[in-house]
Amino acid sequence: MSESTPETNTAIPPVVILCEPQLGENIGMVARAMANFGLHDLRLINPRDGWPSEKARSASSRAHHVIDAARVFDSVEEAVADLKLVFATTARSRDIPKPVVGPDEAANESVAQGLRDIPSGYMFGRERWGLNNDEVALANKIVTLPVDPTYASLNIAQAVLVCAYEWRRVATAGALPFSLDDYEGEPATQESIQRMFDHLESGLDARGFFRPVEKKPVTIRRLRNIFQKADLTDNEVRILRGVISCFEKYGVKDQD
Amino acid sequence: MSESTPETNTAIPPVVILCEPQLGENIGMVARAMANFGLHDLRLINPRDGWPSEKARSASSRAHHVIDAARVFDSVEEAVADLKLVFATTARSRDIPKPVVGPDEAANESVAQGLRDIPSGYMFGRERWGLNNDEVALANKIVTLPVDPTYASLNIAQAVLVCAYEWRRVATAGALPFSLDDYEGEPATQESIQRMFDHLESGLDARGFFRPVEKKPVTIRRLRNIFQKADLTDNEVRILRGVISCFEKYGVKDQD
Repeated sequence: MSESTPETNTAIPPVVILCEPQLGENIGMVARAMANFGLHDLRLINPRDGWPSEKARSASSRAHHVIDAARVFDSVEEAVADLKLVFATTARSRDIPKPVVGPDEAANESVAQGLRDIPSGYMFGRERWGLNNDEVALANKIVTLPVDPTYASLNIAQAVLVCAYEWRRVATAGALPFSLDDYEGEPATQESIQRMFDHLESGLDARGFFRPVEKKPVTIRRLRNIFQKADLTDNEVRILRGVISCFEKYGVKDQD
Repeated sequence: MSESTPETNTAIPPVVILCEPQLGENIGMVARAMANFGLHDLRLINPRDGWPSEKARSASSRAHHVIDAARVFDSVEEAVADLKLVFATTARSRDIPKPVVGPDEAANESVAQGLRDIPSGYMFGRERWGLNNDEVALANKIVTLPVDPTYASLNIAQAVLVCAYEWRRVATAGALPFSLDDYEGEPATQESIQRMFDHLESGLDARGFFRPVEKKPVTIRRLRNIFQKADLTDNEVRILRGVISCFEKYGVKDQD
């Protein structure tokens, strides 16, 4: 079956900035999440266990293009210097008066800017306690996820995944890698459905299915509706006709 | 700072069905992803390494309520028996003519049904090769993620995370656990902003900032706009007035 490629998305993807990430595994899972949704620019600020990291590479499960292109910075200021729209992701509210948006609204803004080649980025904090307030203050807006407040613990790769997913959903207008249209089976013509239904009706008529006769129009309408709802393909109509013929054949036998 | 709780969502959350999951760690991460977004009904079909699983419990990072309530089934048919809307998640298109939707559209349908107490569920396949076609055939619709076709490898917990996120985003109308409104600082009144601006303007006037004088109206308009855009709080206005006073004081000194 052919895979339909989503309409090429011309918005430049946002940068992902990890502040003092601790575990290489998490950096790798972040790279994987980025690659899943077409992000590629990963920036690391003082990764605790150094860089490059074999653990990150293996945890990225072949998102090596993201790992190999990752850059290390000494400060958040340097890491965001070239960006013009920065989101700080945080799971808890801060004593900083700044607009708070969800990943969907952030994606709308990132894509809108990206279509004009204006670079944006998302900052993510340390595994244990996230971003500090000085880092949050560097952002234009705060992004938080619509989590269940009673259970809000999201790991860093999961937060990146949701933001990256929303970015791509918006950037590609929700285009999916494949669709029902990829199915080679042609939709059935109304004529072939009609013939199949006539076949069914006559078979049932011969067996006295439509009694009392005054109920027949309603029953036929309901029966027909079942098949109309099903968006049948040519092949499916052929299968159904086989089913009817089968019943006709043995139905007669049974009456002997 | 107070956390605002999202408007109570009255739609019953969808069930998550894992077909023959292999690693306990993945089951745990699935439970965590579910808990993050308010899902709780986890159903396992023949988990390879048996059930209960200590690995699953520890990987769930305290989503124990989901792990402990998880139920094991021998077949997909049993696991989905009570559901009335079933989505099969798959990363590749199948030779099965069935509607294909994204996690957002699936969430719209799940929430619409859930608000009428009609139970829905998402089926997820094995780590290595997903759902088989017989399992997909049991679903009403196929759900796939808008991934980058050149790098589509998503692990099972990530797929669950995105579907659960979308469900909650729709079910709570995007309500976030906190917002700018939680910031205790009162927005500044237009009057205090106006006084602050008059203060700035007079200070600049005294130093001959507005030259040539005919440009003054435009410059003032642009300056004022900067502060109007900033959605200043009372406290921020006080800080700015301190800044102006500071410059005034030393500005005069400099001129001695």
